[in-house]
Amino acid sequence: MSNFSVANATDTTTTGQLTIATRFIPFSTAGEGHIVNITQELEDLLADTRLDAGTATVFAPGATAAITTLEFEPGVVQDFQRLFDQIIPREQGYEHNVRLGDGNGHSHCRAGLLGPSLVIPFTNGRFTLGTWQAVCFVCFDNVPRDRKVVVQFMGV
Amino acid sequence: MSNFSVANATDTTTTGQLTIATRFIPFSTAGEGHIVNITQELEDLLADTRLDAGTATVFAPGATAAITTLEFEPGVVQDFQRLFDQIIPREQGYEHNVRLGDGNGHSHCRAGLLGPSLVIPFTNGRFTLGTWQAVCFVCFDNVPRDRKVVVQFMGV
Amino acid sequence: MSNFSVANATDTTTTGQLTIATRFIPFSTAGEGHIVNITQELEDLLADTRLDAGTATVFAPGATAAITTLEFEPGVVQDFQRLFDQIIPREQGYEHNVRLGDGNGHSHCRAGLLGPSLVIPFTNGRFTLGTWQAVCFVCFDNVPRDRKVVVQFMGV
Repeated sequence: MSNFSVANATDTTTTGQLTIATRFIPFSTAGEGHIVNITQELEDLLADTRLDAGTATVFAPGATAAITTLEFEPGVVQDFQRLFDQIIPREQGYEHNVRLGDGNGHSHCRAGLLGPSLVIPFTNGRFTLGTWQAVCFVCFDNVPRDRKVVVQFMGV
Repeated sequence: MSNFSVANATDTTTTGQLTIATRFIPFSTAGEGHIVNITQELEDLLADTRLDAGTATVFAPGATAAITTLEFEPGVVQDFQRLFDQIIPREQGYEHNVRLGDGNGHSHCRAGLLGPSLVIPFTNGRFTLGTWQAVCFVCFDNVPRDRKVVVQFMGV
Repeated sequence: MSNFSVANATDTTTTGQLTIATRFIPFSTAGEGHIVNITQELEDLLADTRLDAGTATVFAPGATAAITTLEFEPGVVQDFQRLFDQIIPREQGYEHNVRLGDGNGHSHCRAGLLGPSLVIPFTNGRFTLGTWQAVCFVCFDNVPRDRKVVVQFMGV
């Protein structure tokens, strides 16, 4: 099936019963800025719903992870990880670490800044993502974790 | 009622008439990075809607406030406030302050970076939040304000 | 028609068939932090849908642009552009530039940090935006581009 092309996209309007499909994508993360590309899993889940138009809400449960989109190539991945090392360094003191002792104060700040939710429209059964735009789960925690990202489709 | 547990969550699919419930949470803020935990208010409003599955869009009206999620304990709150003092200092010159004289140029930059909207899925009548993940309104303005956050539930 | 006033807003609940209207706003951008105010276009599109309550998802396709809200006056625009020059400087080395040679490593990091999606509730046919809150498309790419932003209305 062909990818979405925003250049050729046309207006559509649909009315009908709402379908809500709530799904979960499980994976393990290495922590400390590990970025997981979940685009293919999202596309497979969307195809399974057989929905034509609507939105997918991608949500990271937990206070040390976030969702965004990136061109998923090793250079951008490395640059994006360095960005957080620069603006929210792991080494500077954190009150969270003083109080709770788990050493992930930087993880909480990074996750809160990037944010846990992303909403992606789809139309004609395709996400409106750009050609090189991948949906990425970013694990900021300081230890490896088993994760589940929530994906909720709402549409017709 | 038990909390949501992503580890035990299962896929669900529902179809039906769409219900849209628009609500407002009023509170006062002290300004300059005051963080208000609105998770309990959101859970109470969700219970009142009696909706089973869908999304809540949490939106901060105004150009000097933002919404995110954080572990709401005093250490993280203090660390997150310091983050904005470091990357968007109040004291450096702002063109906004030169032009309008209200001294909140940093507030506008901070709010624009963090962003005014958050979308949280719910399923089986529960938000898919992690155990320690609180929904937070962050007031970046330089003066105390009366605020109302918009919460719009869409679901079945 | 009068603007939305959050101070006077009241709770509403509606149930009905879901309408999904997918629209596209085309424009050209100059790149390097060019900020385009698309609020009027969004309001015109909302009026055309004749929807009363729901959400608009505003989405930037591509990996070098983002969506947020700002007070759209020249001072804030200049301050917001400088923020990204400060925290994600164009001049420092990027692995993306080493690998692909297109010189927009900073663009990818900036877009990923700010994020491509924004969700705005509307009620009584009006967006719940604050008086000075404008919806802004931020083009971080290093060259001028023809762009289309996706706007998907879901509501009753």
